[in-house]
Amino acid sequence: MLPAQMSRRLAVINSIMESYRQYGYEVIETPALESLRYLQSGDGGDNEKLMYRVMKRGLRDDALTTASTPDDLADLGLRYDLTVPLARYFASNRAQLPTPFRAIQIGPVWRAERPQRGRYRQFTQCDIDILGEPSIAAEVELVRATVRALTTIGITAGTLRINDRRVLVDLMSSCGFAEDDIPAALIQVDKIDKIGIDGVRDQIAQRWDKLQADAVHALLTACSDPQTRRDVVADRMQGESGEAGLAAITETLRLLSVSGGIDPMDVEFDPTLVRGMGYYTGTIFEITNPQAAGSIAGGGRYDGMIGRISGTETPACGFSIGFERIMELLDESAIPVRETSALLYSPKDLERALVEAERMRMHGDRVMLVARVKNRRAQLERLAAQGIQQIIDLPDAAG
Amino acid sequence: MLPAQMSRRLAVINSIMESYRQYGYEVIETPALESLRYLQSGDGGDNEKLMYRVMKRGLRDDALTTASTPDDLADLGLRYDLTVPLARYFASNRAQLPTPFRAIQIGPVWRAERPQRGRYRQFTQCDIDILGEPSIAAEVELVRATVRALTTIGITAGTLRINDRRVLVDLMSSCGFAEDDIPAALIQVDKIDKIGIDGVRDQIAQRWDKLQADAVHALLTACSDPQTRRDVVADRMQGESGEAGLAAITETLRLLSVSGGIDPMDVEFDPTLVRGMGYYTGTIFEITNPQAAGSIAGGGRYDGMIGRISGTETPACGFSIGFERIMELLDESAIPVRETSALLYSPKDLERALVEAERMRMHGDRVMLVARVKNRRAQLERLAAQGIQQIIDLPDAAG
Repeated sequence: MLPAQMSRRLAVINSIMESYRQYGYEVIETPALESLRYLQSGDGGDNEKLMYRVMKRGLRDDALTTASTPDDLADLGLRYDLTVPLARYFASNRAQLPTPFRAIQIGPVWRAERPQRGRYRQFTQCDIDILGEPSIAAEVELVRATVRALTTIGITAGTLRINDRRVLVDLMSSCGFAEDDIPAALIQVDKIDKIGIDGVRDQIAQRWDKLQADAVHALLTACSDPQTRRDVVADRMQGESGEAGLAAITETLRLLSVSGGIDPMDVEFDPTLVRGMGYYTGTIFEITNPQAAGSIAGGGRYDGMIGRISGTETPACGFSIGFERIMELLDESAIPVRETSALLYSPKDLERALVEAERMRMHGDRVMLVARVKNRRAQLERLAAQGIQQIIDLPDAAG
Repeated sequence: MLPAQMSRRLAVINSIMESYRQYGYEVIETPALESLRYLQSGDGGDNEKLMYRVMKRGLRDDALTTASTPDDLADLGLRYDLTVPLARYFASNRAQLPTPFRAIQIGPVWRAERPQRGRYRQFTQCDIDILGEPSIAAEVELVRATVRALTTIGITAGTLRINDRRVLVDLMSSCGFAEDDIPAALIQVDKIDKIGIDGVRDQIAQRWDKLQADAVHALLTACSDPQTRRDVVADRMQGESGEAGLAAITETLRLLSVSGGIDPMDVEFDPTLVRGMGYYTGTIFEITNPQAAGSIAGGGRYDGMIGRISGTETPACGFSIGFERIMELLDESAIPVRETSALLYSPKDLERALVEAERMRMHGDRVMLVARVKNRRAQLERLAAQGIQQIIDLPDAAG
């Protein structure tokens, strides 16, 4: 990443932080290294498999013979997301944190993926979370704050899709799935954007029976019309949990519609939205953008996880912006960066150049000292390529 | 680190970045993970021993039997400083970078030290470097920029001590050390602040002979008077290299004294200043502060290292602020942080609270929604403890 790109990244990060601070969120920083026992708790899903393991300090050669697997030589791992570290942070500092606790985390995570275009072993995640808020005040605020953050940096087109895990579970139950099969069945439903409704039916028919496959097909077809899907879902709800999920969605949508809604973005209930992570327990949501494949932000409620790691039941809800993805979407040239002037001087005039540059900096200018070279045109072109247009020539001393 | 501390850290980081940008430095980010072959090149000195090693991806159990040492199972390491990654970054991007290239790096590094008070396995380093500038324009600018950065955040008392490795080598040579013994002898001289001049003599007498020990003792004694040390050193210089070093110091000091000097800090030539890292080749400097043991910033010229890693000889000079140390020095309460208001509401009034909070945010305010609890005094105390003094009560709806 070149310096000019980096300034724009920092400008975007600062803007996102400021949007979130307007909602009372505060930046925290959590350690990159964490004990394996927390990183391998199961809450990391498939990402746990991609974790970098760090070798114990001071291993001697005979460690090779006493270990039974390579993992025995590791005690720490690099974080693969920011959610496990947040839970650990909360567990350690709970007594000194407000209720609810609102956190911004913007930082690197690491995944041992095979390196390829667009996939890096280190990349930035950008999460906000609210811990200790059981009501949908959390969901409404997370959505509003994230829409504000995105629109402020210039991403104005988008659709918020919202669903609830409890609704999903009830729907799958209505299609004839046993409770234990539902997570696996949802993994198939989650492929709808890639393989279509017929594809999902085929996958389910392969693993379960034709009756369930046809039931899912009928459900997905019935849900494809935004006008009628709410009624389709309402008719199918069988248990209290599904009803509660649907009521939460309805009230969240209503509260999102007041005071200007989430203008300029759209919002829709999407009963086929799954979101991958197994730790979600209630509302789930994501934001899609017409110019990006997949979502540009996603999140939801995960009421169990903080309790599993910290030992105290704590409702939690979060929203994560796909930071690398939005940087690709942004027209970088549109991100304003304050300019630096180049002060060109002859090396023999270093003292005068230092004095002049200090004088300009006293007025708050950004001034870079550049020794003049013979090929002026090439030098100006090089400076322009770095984004430096403002050239000040220090005249040669008389004589 | 609690949120309030973190905001202050970020405010300090932003202020340092802005000071450095005024001198034309730009922020870059380098990867935390790096190939072991670069991290073990020898340029990391003792820090290489403290490196965290990261296990190869997808190791199978039989890797234990084919490996001859645990290190055979690792191919990456976590950076222990920001200098090796800078050299790698420069090597990869040289064609697109300006000459000279000025970089700011503020980021985490990791060292596998035994955890203890004040030592963390992850901590922040804050470096500026200038690559491709052979003249003392580099040294003068690095010092001025760092003094500016420190004084802007409120660290105004300090002394810049400056020396040159070439002068040191010549001085040790004048005390009768063979070239190969000089690095080891300098390690003893470096202990002067801890064990005193007599202690240094004793250490040298133990390892070399009494003649050399007495010569070093006489040298250090003669150098203890700031008024005369320059002449003492000038009289002893035997070779061109030492002469060049002394001339560079003299000219650097002269250029640092123009346009207000480095006011409010002091500056002195200190021929006993050593600095630990073996990669320094010319000027070395550090800033001490009356309230801190050791230095709060240090750096110097390292003309060989970039060439060793990138394959192209490139002069280089850097200055690093001891970030964790200066955060301890700063009176945190003096660092201004913009306040967030708390909007207290009854849960039944969530909708009105959302509307009111959005209205306030439209004016740029930071507003945190807080559901009112019965014990008002306890709630206000908790909010005050988080630094929130500005309380706005949303009146209950009539009826």
